[in-house]
This record gives sequence, structure tokens and C-alpha cells, in this order.
Amino acid sequence: MEKQGLELKRIAAGIEPPDSRWIAKARQRTAELLMPSRALGRLHDIAERVCGMRRTLAPTIDPKAILIMAGDHGVAGQGVSAYPREVTGAMVRTFLSGGAAINAVARQVGAGVRVVDMGVSAALAPQAAEAGKLVAAKIRRGTDDFTKGPAMSYAEAERAVLTGVQQALALLDGGIAMLGTGDMGIGNTTPSAAIGAVITETDPDAMVGRGTGIDAAALRLKRKVVRGGIQCNQPDRSDGLDVLAKVGGFEIGGIAGSILAAAGRRRPVVIDGFISTAGALIAHAICPLTREYMFAGHCSEEPGHRIMLDYLGLQPLLDLNMRLGEGTGAALAMQIIEGALRVFREVSTFEAAGVPRG
Amino acid sequence: MEKQGLELKRIAAGIEPPDSRWIAKARQRTAELLMPSRALGRLHDIAERVCGMRRTLAPTIDPKAILIMAGDHGVAGQGVSAYPREVTGAMVRTFLSGGAAINAVARQVGAGVRVVDMGVSAALAPQAAEAGKLVAAKIRRGTDDFTKGPAMSYAEAERAVLTGVQQALALLDGGIAMLGTGDMGIGNTTPSAAIGAVITETDPDAMVGRGTGIDAAALRLKRKVVRGGIQCNQPDRSDGLDVLAKVGGFEIGGIAGSILAAAGRRRPVVIDGFISTAGALIAHAICPLTREYMFAGHCSEEPGHRIMLDYLGLQPLLDLNMRLGEGTGAALAMQIIEGALRVFREVSTFEAAGVPRG
Repeated sequence: MEKQGLELKRIAAGIEPPDSRWIAKARQRTAELLMPSRALGRLHDIAERVCGMRRTLAPTIDPKAILIMAGDHGVAGQGVSAYPREVTGAMVRTFLSGGAAINAVARQVGAGVRVVDMGVSAALAPQAAEAGKLVAAKIRRGTDDFTKGPAMSYAEAERAVLTGVQQALALLDGGIAMLGTGDMGIGNTTPSAAIGAVITETDPDAMVGRGTGIDAAALRLKRKVVRGGIQCNQPDRSDGLDVLAKVGGFEIGGIAGSILAAAGRRRPVVIDGFISTAGALIAHAICPLTREYMFAGHCSEEPGHRIMLDYLGLQPLLDLNMRLGEGTGAALAMQIIEGALRVFREVSTFEAAGVPRG
Repeated sequence: MEKQGLELKRIAAGIEPPDSRWIAKARQRTAELLMPSRALGRLHDIAERVCGMRRTLAPTIDPKAILIMAGDHGVAGQGVSAYPREVTGAMVRTFLSGGAAINAVARQVGAGVRVVDMGVSAALAPQAAEAGKLVAAKIRRGTDDFTKGPAMSYAEAERAVLTGVQQALALLDGGIAMLGTGDMGIGNTTPSAAIGAVITETDPDAMVGRGTGIDAAALRLKRKVVRGGIQCNQPDRSDGLDVLAKVGGFEIGGIAGSILAAAGRRRPVVIDGFISTAGALIAHAICPLTREYMFAGHCSEEPGHRIMLDYLGLQPLLDLNMRLGEGTGAALAMQIIEGALRVFREVSTFEAAGVPRG
């Protein structure tokens, strides 16, 4: 049964694929570049895809931003994380003060960082100086425990996605040319694994990993929790919002929304790790064309991540055994895309350089 | 029989391993960083290795430079490349004018580019403005065809390596904190494959690939050429200079030298692709400790590259189906090392941020 609201339907319907004529023009330009045919491999594919998205042969990805969605999870009460729940709020405060890993990498790549409180349990009262960095958009103070019923209502799931759309549009319409996704939420590899298992039709045991670093006993429990949550709620994998409502999280909905917004505005969006890719699965379930605007920043250590990426047909740009989240993998990978565009824009042609062809 | 000259012996003997006490101190600092234990995977290993090289917990890699070694190859006359020999000199001129791919990527990462004419066939008279960018250090105008005898004499091989040492030291002692290797030389995947086959004891058929993009007939010929060159010259794999002399190239010797210099000055050196890794094999044969200062920038499309990297025990930082050389993979990968050090230096600790541990 179709329950998706009208506004989200309109957004999804407005998403077009990258323009194949511009991709073809871009391929032609690549063929003229002063190097053996397509000798920079995936860098050419990246540049050509961005040309197709932006309908230009001189695309830029600056300014760029990492949009971190934060939320808490009822299911964390089951003991599926190595960290206490209050860490979510504490980490959001660290994002604002600039001391987290994502801040360091974002500074390196010249990306802004914005955090959206999608549903953190703690009250987060930003200082005036932090006003532009933190957006208060709590759906609710944490989801419900999905082993006992849905994590949130269908209406809340829709609100989470639409909030993500709205927050990303604020950045994109303010001039941001490339978005990276990020997440914070203690316990959120558990709903992400559940989403991954449902949408990719994978056994939960293969999808669940150690997250922040739980021991073998907690891993067994986490697998049971994910399997139980799916059995109890019976999510409908053909309806992204239903999956999000039953076994998801507010920040995962926010991530899905930000991907929908980027696709709607024809901008590249770099997906971070396991949690962000769960958000990408929701976005893809709502509108499969979103996939055409995604770059997979990296492949996480979390074993289910590769399964999710394969399902989406995305090849990660980096593979460095990272498993932090926050948007760190997306931010680091932005430099590869930047390099691809630099080469595309700046390298001379055989003709201009007067170099004989092979 | 030991034929290696005295000066090179002294340089090799002066190379020390990275300092394990500083690596241990760095690991301790990583454990305090505000994130789950080693959640950024290989980024931590990278930062700790650089701490061990530099004997500090605040290492920097700026300023950085790409040192491109250029040379021509007698064996190119056999028809093993898709490009005519004069392209080597033409590309060197493009490096100087800033229009090549390496220039674009080096600009992105903030690395300087210096080119050493190790043995280009063409006369390269740099303009005054290019004086600092091109070093004239021709051993000779191209090597001899190694299917008919050694590519160069043992004394020339030694001079090539020592020239590389000298040119790299000029950069390192001028303050360059991290070096990337680069190459230019039409036909140079052929000597690189020969070096790889000899040193890693691999059948030439597995080591030879399509280079700049030769067809199936040229590939068969190239395999025959490499096999024939090895059979004809019988290189002694225990003597790096002997291998270089018999089946190598002047620029490959220069690359080996620049790696020896970086290791001698305890600086990280990022190895580019197939040709640079052939240079790394020579450096490693001369002094195995050089390996401890190498980062493998990327894994090339050239099938033998993975075999070489495995032999050296190096895991590439990037894997993007690139096969251009010039130093492009090294330059692009410098950003990963930069990110690793940013995280190490800039991220807060649990204690400082007041965040509870798991």
C-alpha cells in the first residue's frame, strides 16, 4: 500500500538522471587530454559524471560542505554499543568546537561542517557563536526500541526525510556545490544493519558488525536484536519510509533526505560509511535515480558495507579500513573528486601541447 | 661478486629504520584520540610510521615535492610502446610549462614539481624561467637496447643512482619534508617489467602489461622482448645495480636514488606506479631498509604492479585504475597522508573533550 506523502513524491519525481549528452561531450574532451587513452582510469569517469550532473565541461565542486545528521536510538538501551548514549550529544558539541576527526579532515579539504540535531536525547543549546553550525530540528528525543515495535511512526519517518531535504537545500541553494554526508548517533550501526538486511535482502548475521568495537557476546546480542527487530516489525522493502519508520533512525532519515536534495539540485553527494549508506539505501528506495548522484567515499571495515555498496552498484573511492563515520570518509574522498576535476579542467591537449599521438 | 661502489655503500649503510620508540609513543597518543579504538584504520598506521621516521609527535609533510626522472630507452626501438620516442622530451617540456596531469595534481596538493633529465634522447635546453624546474643530468642520450646486451654499463648504473641521490638531497636539504617519485620515458614499462620479473622472480608473461595501451600483437612482442633481455643479460638479482645496468633505465636508477636519499634523511617517500616501483625494487635491493620509508601511492592497472607491491610488502593507498605515471598517483596519495597527520595532530582527546569512554 502506498503511504508516501505528497511532498516527498513531488521531490522524487523531480529528480532527473545526469545528462548523457554532457557525459558524451566530456568523454570527447577526455580523449583529447595529453595522456594515453583514459590513463587516469576512474578519475575520468568521475569527472565525466560530474559534467553530466552539472551540464557543463567546467564543473566545480567548491564550496563544499559536510552535513552531519545526529540522533539517538531506543535500541541502544539493549547494549548494542560500546559507548553510553550521552556520547551522541557530547560528540555534537565537539563537532561545534572543532575538535573531532571530521573537523580535522574538513579543514584539510576546505569543507564546511554543519550539524543537524535530528533527534539527540540530550538538550543541545548552541552558543550564539555556534548558531550557524548547529540546526535544531529534533523529531523527538531518540527513537523507540525497534525490538518492541517500530522505531518511529510513518509520519515521523517522512518528517525526518523532509527535514534532511530542507537542511540540504539550505546549503545547496546557498551555493554549496558538493555535499558530503555524515552521521552521529550511539547505537546507529544497529538500525543501519537492519535497513541493510531488509533492503538488500541479506541475512542479518552477514550485515551486523562490531560497530564502535563491541566484544563477541555483544555482537551475538546485536545480531539477535537486528533479526528480532525485523521479525517483529516486518518492514516493507519496497517502501523506503516504511523501512525507516520500523527499523531506522532519525539521522538516517535526514541523510536520505540530504541525498534526495542533492540529486534534485543535480549536485554530487559523497556518501560516507555504513550509516550513511543505510541512508543512501532509503533514498534509493524512495527514488532510484538518486544513485546517479552518489559517490561512495570509502569502504568501511563494517562487513555489511560492501554488500550495501554492491547493491547500489557503487565502487568506493577509498578503502582504508576506516569505521568512524562522522563524514570522515566522505570528506577524505572529496579530494579524489577534486583531483579528477583538476585533471579534466587543467590538463593540456595533444594539439595544444604539440605532442605527437601514439 | 660485489661490484657496488664505495659511495653508494656508505649511503646505504647510513640508513636506519624508523624509531620504534617514537612509533610506540605515537600509538599511545592514537589511543587517546576522541574516537573508538583505531577507528580510522590505516590513517593511524600512516601517522605513526611518519612519527617514527621523523622522531616527533608533531610531524609535518610540508613542503612537498614530486621529483620526476626522465630518460629514453634503446629497447623502445623494438616497438614496445604505443608512442614515438620523441614524446619523452615533448612531455618534459610540458611538465615545465605546467600543462601535464602531474602539474594539475601537484597544484591541487601543493607540491612542487622538479624534473631531472637523466638521459632523454632530445636536447632539452630549458628557458631561464624554467631553470629551477629542470635539472640537466644526462647520463647518456637513452640506454642501449637490452635485447642486444646490457642497457648501460655498471658504472653508468651507479652514476644514475647517485645522481638520483644527489638531486633528491638537494630538495630534502632545502627543506622538502615529503617526496613523491615520478617518471617519464617512452618504453619504460618494458625495463620496469624486466626488473620486476628478475627481482620478484616472476615469469615475464605475468609481469608485462599494455603500458600506454599497446595492442595484442605488440603485447606478445613486449613479452618476448622482456624474456629475451633477461635471458641475454642474466641479471644478478642480489645486486640492484647489476639488474639496473642490464635491463633498467637511467630514470629508474634516478628514482632508486631518490628513495635512498629520502630514507637516508628519514623522510617519507611516496612511490608512484609501475615504473617508480621498479625503482623502489632497485633501492630495496641496494638497501632493504628503504622499504620502511616508502608509501605506495596507488595500485596501477599494469598487472605486474601488484606483484611488485606484494614483494615489497606495501599496501597501496589508492586503487583507481590509473596507469599514467609522471608521479600522478604519488601526488594524489599525498592527500591521504596529509589527512592522517591532520587527524593525529588536530583531533581532541577523550579527556580534553570531556567525553565518556566506552
